[in-house]
Amino acid sequence: MTFERDNIKALHAYTPGEQPQETGVIKLNTNENPYPPSPKVMAAISAVLPEQLRKYPPPSAMKFRQAAAKLHGVSAEQIIATNGGDELLRLAFTVFCDPQKGDEKRGGFSYPRTQGGVGVAEPSYSLYPVLADIHDSLIARVPLNEDWSIPGDWASKLNDAGCRLGLIVNPHAPSGHLESVESLEKQARAFKGVLMIDEAYVDFAGQSALGLLEEKRGLSNVIILRTLSKGYSLAGLRFGYGIGHAPLIAAMNKAKDSYNTDMLSQAAAIAALEDQEYAQGTWKKVLSERARLVGELEKRGWTVLPSASNFILVTPVAGKPPAKKIYESLKDAGILVRYFDQDRLRDKLRITVGDGAQNDRLLRHIDSIVG
Amino acid sequence: MTFERDNIKALHAYTPGEQPQETGVIKLNTNENPYPPSPKVMAAISAVLPEQLRKYPPPSAMKFRQAAAKLHGVSAEQIIATNGGDELLRLAFTVFCDPQKGDEKRGGFSYPRTQGGVGVAEPSYSLYPVLADIHDSLIARVPLNEDWSIPGDWASKLNDAGCRLGLIVNPHAPSGHLESVESLEKQARAFKGVLMIDEAYVDFAGQSALGLLEEKRGLSNVIILRTLSKGYSLAGLRFGYGIGHAPLIAAMNKAKDSYNTDMLSQAAAIAALEDQEYAQGTWKKVLSERARLVGELEKRGWTVLPSASNFILVTPVAGKPPAKKIYESLKDAGILVRYFDQDRLRDKLRITVGDGAQNDRLLRHIDSIVG
Repeated sequence: MTFERDNIKALHAYTPGEQPQETGVIKLNTNENPYPPSPKVMAAISAVLPEQLRKYPPPSAMKFRQAAAKLHGVSAEQIIATNGGDELLRLAFTVFCDPQKGDEKRGGFSYPRTQGGVGVAEPSYSLYPVLADIHDSLIARVPLNEDWSIPGDWASKLNDAGCRLGLIVNPHAPSGHLESVESLEKQARAFKGVLMIDEAYVDFAGQSALGLLEEKRGLSNVIILRTLSKGYSLAGLRFGYGIGHAPLIAAMNKAKDSYNTDMLSQAAAIAALEDQEYAQGTWKKVLSERARLVGELEKRGWTVLPSASNFILVTPVAGKPPAKKIYESLKDAGILVRYFDQDRLRDKLRITVGDGAQNDRLLRHIDSIVG
Repeated sequence: MTFERDNIKALHAYTPGEQPQETGVIKLNTNENPYPPSPKVMAAISAVLPEQLRKYPPPSAMKFRQAAAKLHGVSAEQIIATNGGDELLRLAFTVFCDPQKGDEKRGGFSYPRTQGGVGVAEPSYSLYPVLADIHDSLIARVPLNEDWSIPGDWASKLNDAGCRLGLIVNPHAPSGHLESVESLEKQARAFKGVLMIDEAYVDFAGQSALGLLEEKRGLSNVIILRTLSKGYSLAGLRFGYGIGHAPLIAAMNKAKDSYNTDMLSQAAAIAALEDQEYAQGTWKKVLSERARLVGELEKRGWTVLPSASNFILVTPVAGKPPAKKIYESLKDAGILVRYFDQDRLRDKLRITVGDGAQNDRLLRHIDSIVG
C-alpha cells in the first residue's frame, strides 16, 4: 500500500549534479563560482549572536529586501527573498499554475492544451519539468531554434496552450546563449500569463532584463529570478530572490513558508550584495578564464558555443572519443563535468569555467584522452 | 488584472507572532526556548569554511540524517531534513493531499466530504488551515473535547470525510495538553491516511510517540515531526526533520526542493543534536520555571491548564481586565504574549515560559495591571 499521490508516485525526481564532499575533486559540473565568497560574508556569519539564532528570524527578510531594492533601484515591496532560486521557481508554480483538474485527468485535454500549466523552451533547466510534475501541472514544451534562441512565436504558443506561467532562463542553460532584452520584451508583451526570467547566470552576461520592470514599459507580468549561488559564490548558503511588480511579489510572499530564510543566510546575503566590488572582481576573473578556455579548446578543434555564462557547451571533435566517453574518463581522473543524455546534447559536454589551475588540469587531461 | 490562482487570491496568509528585532522586548509570544543555543552550535557555524559555502551542500543532509537516526534508534532512510518544521508540514500536503478537483469546485462535494484533503483537531496550530488553502486542499475540522483531548472517533470522522492526511500536534498547541501514546496509536491504527504527529514541543513533555514507528507495531502510516526551533534554541536557524517509515520518507525526499537545507544549518543542526547534555539542561530549567510560573499565577486566582510544553494557556480572573486588555497592557510595557481572537480562546492568553528574570517581570506587570 502506498499513500502518496499518483503524480508523486510517478515522479522522476530531479537529479542534482554530483556533489562529492571530498576535497581533491575538481568540480566543473554544477556551475559554482571557482572563487570563494567575500571575506565580508564570512565576517557577517561570525557576527550572528546566539540570541539571534534563539529567536525566529525576520519572516520576510526585510533588511535583505531593502539591500536588494537599493542595488537594483526598485522598492522593497518588489523583492521576495527565497531559500535558493529553487524556492522561487516552486512558488511560481504554487501561486500561478493550476494542478490538473479531474476532467483533464479523464482525458479531456492533453498537450497542446495545458490549461493553467507552464510553458518552457526546450532544452532547458531540467528542474522545470520536475517542478511541474510535483505540482501536477501540465507542461508545454516548445523547442528552441537551431541556434538556441527562443522562437518568435513562443509566447503565442503558450497562450494557445492556456499556460499561466512561462519560464525562460537567460543566459540560457545549458547552451550559454544570450537572448536580447528586446526579444524578451516581445515575449512578455505577447504572453498572457506570468513570465519568469531566470537570471541565475546574469552576473556573467553583462546584460539584464531588469529594465522590463520599469513603470513606463507597462508590463505587469514579469518576475526576474536571481540567486547568490553563482555570482556570489554562495551555492552552499541557499539564497535567491525575485524582483517583480509589487502585486506579483505580494502574492508570492503570501504563499511562501512563514520563515523561509534563516538568520545566518539573511546576514550573509546582505553582506554579499553589499560587497559588489569583491563579487565583480570574481566575475571578471571568470570571464577572462572563459575566454582562455574557449581559445584552448578551439585550438584543439572542439566546437564551443558562444557563452554569456560561467559555463560552456562544447562539442568534441567527431571521430575522437564521443562526449560521454570523455565525461567518464575525466571523472575517473577526478574532474567532474556535466553530460546530458538527451536530444541535442548527447554529443556535447557542459563545462563550468574553473580557476586557472583547474582549467589547466582539465586541458591536460583532455589532451591525454584525446591526444 | 491579477495572475494568481483563486485560492491564493482568497488566501488569508498565516500571521506569524510578532518578531521585533529590538533588544529590550521580552518575547513570551512564540515559544522560543529562553536559553541560548549550545556553544558547540556556535563553534560548528564558525568552523564552516568559505569553500563549503562556495559549493552546493549535500542535497539530503545525509550526515544530519545519520546523526538524527543514531539519536532516535532508526535508520537514516527514516529521516528527512527540512527547512524548519514548516517545510515538513507543507511537504506532507504536497505528497499526500489532493488539491480540489474541478467537479468539487463546481459544488459536488463539501465538508464533511473532503476527498483527498486534510483533517485536523480544532483549535490547533493556525498554520495548518493556511497550508491547506495554499495547496487548495479541503479541510475537515473536528472539535477537540472540552478537556482538549482528541475525540475517540477523530480518525473515523477523517475516514468518512475521505482525508488522506491527519495532523495532530502533541503536546497540543495552544493548550499544552498531552495526549497519551496509547490514544495516538488507536487513532493511527484507525486512520486510513497518513498521520503526522507534530512533536514540536516534545522536548518539554517527557513522552514521545516514537515507539509507534517500531516494526512490531505494524503501523506504516505515521510520520513524526521534530524541530530544532524550541528544544534546541534554534528558531533562527530553520531546521526541522521528519521520522517515519522509509517509503513515506522517500516520497517526501523526492518532492522536496533539491537543496532544501544549507551548509551552515546542516553543520549547526548536527552539533545541536549531538550536544544532548546541554539541550536537556535547558529543558530542565524551563520545566522548573514553568512550575514556578504556574504556581504564581494560580496564587493570583488565574486558571492554568496543565501543560506538557514550554508555554501555558491561562485564563485571567473573571471581572478583572479581560484577556485581550491584559495582552495589550503587557505589550505596551514591552512584554509580548499571544492572544488568539477565536472560539474557546478569547478569554485566554498563551504565555511562553521565559527565564527567571523574564517571568518575574511578567508577574510584576500582571500585578500592576490586575492588582
